[in-house]
Amino acid sequence: MNNPFKLVLASMSPRRMELLRDLGYEFAVMNPSVDENFPDDLSPEEVPVFLAGKKLDFSLISASDDETIFIAADTIVICEGEILGKPLDQADAYKKLSSISGKTHVVITGVCIGNKTNRICFDDKTEVFVESLTDSEINQYISDFNVFDKAGAYGIQDWLGIAKISAIKGSYTNVMGLPTQKLWKEINNFIQKAL
Amino acid sequence: MNNPFKLVLASMSPRRMELLRDLGYEFAVMNPSVDENFPDDLSPEEVPVFLAGKKLDFSLISASDDETIFIAADTIVICEGEILGKPLDQADAYKKLSSISGKTHVVITGVCIGNKTNRICFDDKTEVFVESLTDSEINQYISDFNVFDKAGAYGIQDWLGIAKISAIKGSYTNVMGLPTQKLWKEINNFIQKAL
Repeated sequence: MNNPFKLVLASMSPRRMELLRDLGYEFAVMNPSVDENFPDDLSPEEVPVFLAGKKLDFSLISASDDETIFIAADTIVICEGEILGKPLDQADAYKKLSSISGKTHVVITGVCIGNKTNRICFDDKTEVFVESLTDSEINQYISDFNVFDKAGAYGIQDWLGIAKISAIKGSYTNVMGLPTQKLWKEINNFIQKAL
Repeated sequence: MNNPFKLVLASMSPRRMELLRDLGYEFAVMNPSVDENFPDDLSPEEVPVFLAGKKLDFSLISASDDETIFIAADTIVICEGEILGKPLDQADAYKKLSSISGKTHVVITGVCIGNKTNRICFDDKTEVFVESLTDSEINQYISDFNVFDKAGAYGIQDWLGIAKISAIKGSYTNVMGLPTQKLWKEINNFIQKAL
């Protein structure tokens, strides 16, 4: 960026770091260690932007000037109206993977971009169809891949996505954790306005 | 694979090799050096399976037994009814990228799996929406990435896909060059039948 701004990604997700790098940005990272509770009256669809906002609020505590722009994000999986978070243990991973087998679920990533003065929040929604998974496929997958840091217990870029996600509708990178196409536009807009 | 078969990927595409490896297969590679001509009376949609079949035919010349199974594939981009091949030079890459800017195109990959006795051919179709590209974005992209070995002059997994492909409908890996989800099923079926 030929501008005075520094970008900070408020996320420790290796997928988000990779995507932001692939967009062509240089940035620092920080861990926004907030609890992931949200008000009961939010619909599942409203949760990702709410949690991204909470992460941005936490990040801004350390902001000393308006030239540091933070990017916070939260990704959820919604299957049959219910939010599937990161699996707690092996049995929970099995349960989550069984519940997405042979049907379409929705992945929503909420993003908040902000400095001390301004913020913009948005989200993106992708429909994901997973082919039927056999018991042995699920067990093999859990033992071969790290499913515990991923909402819904899968990564679209690893074996499950390659062998079993036969169709998506929407942004692929949004399922990985960042709606990079909207992010590209919104970061550029944010910087133009802040200049 | 716990079976007597050896897989050979009849393609030198690094993306196809990566995808087949990620599916969990071990395989050899070979270059099916056929011309990519096809009969005039084929519709664009029929071309990928036709060319994959031609590549399989070529590969089978070197097959000595039925335990070697070849996988051949061909990927085309169709925009407004016209096939966009690999760009011939920088000016042609610019023209191809301009023509997909701000609209939806279709990517079809045809696959033929076969040995000396049997073959099965299939294809998969993915719709791809590309956001509007500015002149400077196109020129920057052509200078930063290798566009010359790719149909339509782009890679969905590099900057263009990450910043500009805001939606697809269908299989993501199909756009990279292999419909891995159908391939997973069909290889397993082929092996079961051949055992």
